[in-house]
Amino acid sequence: MSDQKKYSSIHYTSYLQLEKILDAQSPRSKELGKEAHEETLFIIVHQVYELWFKQVLHEMESVMKLFQTNNVDEKNIDIAVSRLERVNEIVKLMIQQVRVIETMTPLDFLDFRSYLFPASGFQSFQFRKLEVMLGLKKEKRTSYTAYPYYHEFSQEQQDEILRLEASPSLFVLLESWLERTPFIDIQGFDFKSKYMQAVSNMLNRERQAIETSDYLTDQEKAMRLKMNGDTDTYFANIFNAAFHEQQIAEGKMRLSFKATMAALLIQLYGTEPLLQLPYRLLNVITEMDELLTSWRYRHSQMVMRMLGRKTGTGGSSGHSYLMETVIKHQIFIDFHNISTLLIPRSELPPLPPEMKRTLGYYFNHS
Amino acid sequence: MSDQKKYSSIHYTSYLQLEKILDAQSPRSKELGKEAHEETLFIIVHQVYELWFKQVLHEMESVMKLFQTNNVDEKNIDIAVSRLERVNEIVKLMIQQVRVIETMTPLDFLDFRSYLFPASGFQSFQFRKLEVMLGLKKEKRTSYTAYPYYHEFSQEQQDEILRLEASPSLFVLLESWLERTPFIDIQGFDFKSKYMQAVSNMLNRERQAIETSDYLTDQEKAMRLKMNGDTDTYFANIFNAAFHEQQIAEGKMRLSFKATMAALLIQLYGTEPLLQLPYRLLNVITEMDELLTSWRYRHSQMVMRMLGRKTGTGGSSGHSYLMETVIKHQIFIDFHNISTLLIPRSELPPLPPEMKRTLGYYFNHS
Amino acid sequence: MSDQKKYSSIHYTSYLQLEKILDAQSPRSKELGKEAHEETLFIIVHQVYELWFKQVLHEMESVMKLFQTNNVDEKNIDIAVSRLERVNEIVKLMIQQVRVIETMTPLDFLDFRSYLFPASGFQSFQFRKLEVMLGLKKEKRTSYTAYPYYHEFSQEQQDEILRLEASPSLFVLLESWLERTPFIDIQGFDFKSKYMQAVSNMLNRERQAIETSDYLTDQEKAMRLKMNGDTDTYFANIFNAAFHEQQIAEGKMRLSFKATMAALLIQLYGTEPLLQLPYRLLNVITEMDELLTSWRYRHSQMVMRMLGRKTGTGGSSGHSYLMETVIKHQIFIDFHNISTLLIPRSELPPLPPEMKRTLGYYFNHS
Amino acid sequence: MSDQKKYSSIHYTSYLQLEKILDAQSPRSKELGKEAHEETLFIIVHQVYELWFKQVLHEMESVMKLFQTNNVDEKNIDIAVSRLERVNEIVKLMIQQVRVIETMTPLDFLDFRSYLFPASGFQSFQFRKLEVMLGLKKEKRTSYTAYPYYHEFSQEQQDEILRLEASPSLFVLLESWLERTPFIDIQGFDFKSKYMQAVSNMLNRERQAIETSDYLTDQEKAMRLKMNGDTDTYFANIFNAAFHEQQIAEGKMRLSFKATMAALLIQLYGTEPLLQLPYRLLNVITEMDELLTSWRYRHSQMVMRMLGRKTGTGGSSGHSYLMETVIKHQIFIDFHNISTLLIPRSELPPLPPEMKRTLGYYFNHS
Repeated sequence: MSDQKKYSSIHYTSYLQLEKILDAQSPRSKELGKEAHEETLFIIVHQVYELWFKQVLHEMESVMKLFQTNNVDEKNIDIAVSRLERVNEIVKLMIQQVRVIETMTPLDFLDFRSYLFPASGFQSFQFRKLEVMLGLKKEKRTSYTAYPYYHEFSQEQQDEILRLEASPSLFVLLESWLERTPFIDIQGFDFKSKYMQAVSNMLNRERQAIETSDYLTDQEKAMRLKMNGDTDTYFANIFNAAFHEQQIAEGKMRLSFKATMAALLIQLYGTEPLLQLPYRLLNVITEMDELLTSWRYRHSQMVMRMLGRKTGTGGSSGHSYLMETVIKHQIFIDFHNISTLLIPRSELPPLPPEMKRTLGYYFNHS
Repeated sequence: MSDQKKYSSIHYTSYLQLEKILDAQSPRSKELGKEAHEETLFIIVHQVYELWFKQVLHEMESVMKLFQTNNVDEKNIDIAVSRLERVNEIVKLMIQQVRVIETMTPLDFLDFRSYLFPASGFQSFQFRKLEVMLGLKKEKRTSYTAYPYYHEFSQEQQDEILRLEASPSLFVLLESWLERTPFIDIQGFDFKSKYMQAVSNMLNRERQAIETSDYLTDQEKAMRLKMNGDTDTYFANIFNAAFHEQQIAEGKMRLSFKATMAALLIQLYGTEPLLQLPYRLLNVITEMDELLTSWRYRHSQMVMRMLGRKTGTGGSSGHSYLMETVIKHQIFIDFHNISTLLIPRSELPPLPPEMKRTLGYYFNHS
Repeated sequence: MSDQKKYSSIHYTSYLQLEKILDAQSPRSKELGKEAHEETLFIIVHQVYELWFKQVLHEMESVMKLFQTNNVDEKNIDIAVSRLERVNEIVKLMIQQVRVIETMTPLDFLDFRSYLFPASGFQSFQFRKLEVMLGLKKEKRTSYTAYPYYHEFSQEQQDEILRLEASPSLFVLLESWLERTPFIDIQGFDFKSKYMQAVSNMLNRERQAIETSDYLTDQEKAMRLKMNGDTDTYFANIFNAAFHEQQIAEGKMRLSFKATMAALLIQLYGTEPLLQLPYRLLNVITEMDELLTSWRYRHSQMVMRMLGRKTGTGGSSGHSYLMETVIKHQIFIDFHNISTLLIPRSELPPLPPEMKRTLGYYFNHS
Repeated sequence: MSDQKKYSSIHYTSYLQLEKILDAQSPRSKELGKEAHEETLFIIVHQVYELWFKQVLHEMESVMKLFQTNNVDEKNIDIAVSRLERVNEIVKLMIQQVRVIETMTPLDFLDFRSYLFPASGFQSFQFRKLEVMLGLKKEKRTSYTAYPYYHEFSQEQQDEILRLEASPSLFVLLESWLERTPFIDIQGFDFKSKYMQAVSNMLNRERQAIETSDYLTDQEKAMRLKMNGDTDTYFANIFNAAFHEQQIAEGKMRLSFKATMAALLIQLYGTEPLLQLPYRLLNVITEMDELLTSWRYRHSQMVMRMLGRKTGTGGSSGHSYLMETVIKHQIFIDFHNISTLLIPRSELPPLPPEMKRTLGYYFNHS
């Protein structure tokens, strides 16, 4: 490539292909003879969402590529974190964008809604693709027809969805990356038993505090002691690999025992220089999950405002469907749940120096 | 009062009583010998929330006072709208404030959490008071003990709560205000039957569109026709006062039939000059309800991040409790549901001039 | 148009013309052989801005149309307010969007920046058009070449710009609308002299307060008395039509004397039922002006972060140019300045009933 | 300390000292006989600001302590970054909070404004303290009286201000930390000359592109070539230590030559694992500077809205004063300007391995 070409001139309008972008709004109401003023807003808001989806997919694909190897370079974790932070800023914007659509009143919307039938957000290929890439499992999807969720896409799009369903998702890639952490096999540091001991100490102390509290009534004490006992049982279970596998088999959990232990270790010792990047990675992922959930939530509120309990153009029960996906389509819930397993820093068993080295070695691409 | 006194000098520090405000942070961890850096943040964040609650109560009390009369002055509706808009800006800030507390990691929090036992957000008198004033009913509250929710307050505070429970809430005041709208009795305009006719026309047209669509499979058509029929039944029920009363008796609804009809009329004809203020009022109320719900939701996400499924300091199951209140403690849900009853503007029966005058008379009560 | 056509089917993808929208990103760096990952973000961010500009222009055109008459219907003021509120929500989003572009580091940007030469935001036809429609005057524009600001647009676009420059802008339309307020000619209420008297009373009281303050040193008193005197002079000038005209001639002001007086009256008596809509209109306009200014400001901060004091691709001095436009391109500054003229509600001369009626007559023009 | 005491009970109300916090709002207007409804808002908004200032100072003090040593531990940089990120979230909230105060109309404000005389935000001790800690120099302050800015504080507060003025500010601490970077003395890598060569290559290429562009007119070419030449001169100067010192002497710059070179190196090679934390630190600082500037800007817009060009209660020219501080009180401007010195990643001279080691050694607390 010649430098001459590199420095050839370019105009803002052609660079951004504005002739396409700005010529892509054809309100159906106008076409049908009576323009509804707000239909343009409706179109543009959704086009902007699709542009952001494209950007999010661009980042997501690049991040997944960085993890499609057994040797993830530390420098690449840094890149992954930056790109996922960008995704999070975009999702924050998408959440705020709901306010813009809400400047349209329900009656404004009803002025053109019947013309959209049966177009629906269900038909957003990019959003479905994103869900699959993140790791949403087919069987977790809320369905309202006998057809698979992708039956309205083009053949090419359906093939891509099926290919992605068959490939490792971001969830799976992160799980494998976590499982490769070698800490369980380290000589001289039995993290699991040391941590269980620390938990036990802590719960004992809490139990005593409850029993001797001057503030609680007997009834409250009984209730709280029961809770303390439940937590004890909970922790005992959690460190039991067999129990964990059973939970997975029953669909109550998804992240493998080994990966869960690694994620716990990273959360606990995340300020250690060599764990800082893994720590930031886990956090940016859970924040992304939280933000996407918030977006679904705000979106479902907006649909409620526009339609109440009316059926959506796509035939779903609208608001109810969306509220259901708020919870069910959350993918990294097991990462959030790690917090249940945390104990105060002051109770943490110290990491032995060998372990730090090994971890460092690992994350520095052995 | 003399002008001299009016213009006596005042200093920023004493005016804001900063000696009190800025001397009210005593981290327990510091007192107990080992300061946890983040405890100051935890204290200040909650103090800021309480200051906002105070402001919200200030607005709420003034708004409720404006409605404690059978003759609500139009000028006062304008004032009420402005003040509730202010409340909404404050709640938006409260939602964003969750991000600030989230800069604290779960381990940072665990460093001092055990010292807070059994202090808990449940003990926020101002927030409980706000809930009662908005109209949260005792029996709707999620409870985790045998005690009433206010048993930890001072006697004076308990008395205030009981007094407020016995007084008309904002919900009740708005309901009465809506019920006083005289439109049902107007000669020459039977809103109910005209509206039912319009709905029926619209649904018939939709039914035809489904039946003749070239896009839908037979199975989808069947499903959608069933939905269309359901909507038909739904509307028939909704305009049936007896059915409505039964729904209320079963706890599925709360807003009276008469008030529901008035709210529907206002939503439908809200651009009429004399209905603009009532329309803005209903909207600012439902937005407030939505924002408070969003705040609960974000708050519950934050607790999940900090504690996972751990038990809260107040003894509740923390995250689960909070998620439950997100839905159950929403108060103006019947106002949101009005949207279900709306039809496109083009299908609306025109308002007769007499009606406009009567409505005007009511809201102006000149 | 047949109902059959109305209810023909439509798919999300074709309705939103996604084949165009999502096929309009061709990074120059990729084309030239070495894709810079962040160029896609750069393209999409700007495309989103252009989509929002399109929406803002859609609202702006509709609002201007409502004011291109001597008889502005009250219902239309309500519509104008809603649409401008929408514009404001969009501009808030545009401001937050700056954060998204800021997730790109300066080095990321420099990876493809040289390929963009000489494309530049100056070449955004839609933004230029918006500025003209709002009322930015040619002579107020900061220019960095001898060419008119529109010389890089297509002939058709240049014609449209020239046509718009020759037509009344939103500023001019609002000014005329304000000037048509008949209050100055009302018998029995000389607003100007009554208001001047009220101002004079207020300033006298302030003067006394300063003189008798026990808090201020003599030097401070002298300074403040001078300021009080300046304010006195200021008000005297402000109510002097000849002085006002001179200020306009010198380019220090723009809004006519008559319109200024009307805007002042609306600000002062904005809670009167019949002035509520005009009041909301003036406020939504000044908020829009403020938000657009904030957006320019954030945009200029972002350019600073990306380029420091480097020259922009369009050849401007980048950051400095943008900072200059933050102030200079603000259009409704005279509306903000009305606040200088306000006095406390308790000092206001009461509106006579005739005046209320006349104002009502005007705005209702029944 | 006994565990018993540690687990003694505590109540939400007493823990947060709500009896103080919620009893600190005494509207002057109420005291003087006629309560202005909005004065409570005014008080609470400012109290919230002061609570946030307290939190920001808490973080700032802890961060400065981490840098008051010649050996900054890498782990401490991580802590500093997290705490400054928290400050940034708080400042974002403070910016959004301006919207809340703006729900008060100018007339609402004027209802009680005269009673506040001469209280003023100038009298916020915490904010002045923060400015000094960040590094605002006395001589950079905009003053409107002959008195030092702290003359209205208590003696104790004045002493603290003077002590802080005499101690190293955050600016100075960062400058020293940067100056200790040993890279200039490294054998075998003359960063300065290698970088100057890279810059020169880049500018030559740009010059050629301009000369051969088919898009630009001769006039534009001339202008751009002049700009390219200016940039050349600019870079030549920038790498000239003597010139740099002269700029500092003239008050045009502040950051020392050595520190500037270190900051440039960090910006350029910030993705190197061992430079990631320093890179994040510089970025969080410049973002903080930008956010504080944005807050001043929004604050000054709000004052404009409330008062127009009226004199502030503190006697300043209000809006003008505040707008002036937006620019003048920005402290880390030299850090922003580093962007001017950046060139594309592809043009960067590669870092020699020895250098990486040395840098690593340094930042890992030698």
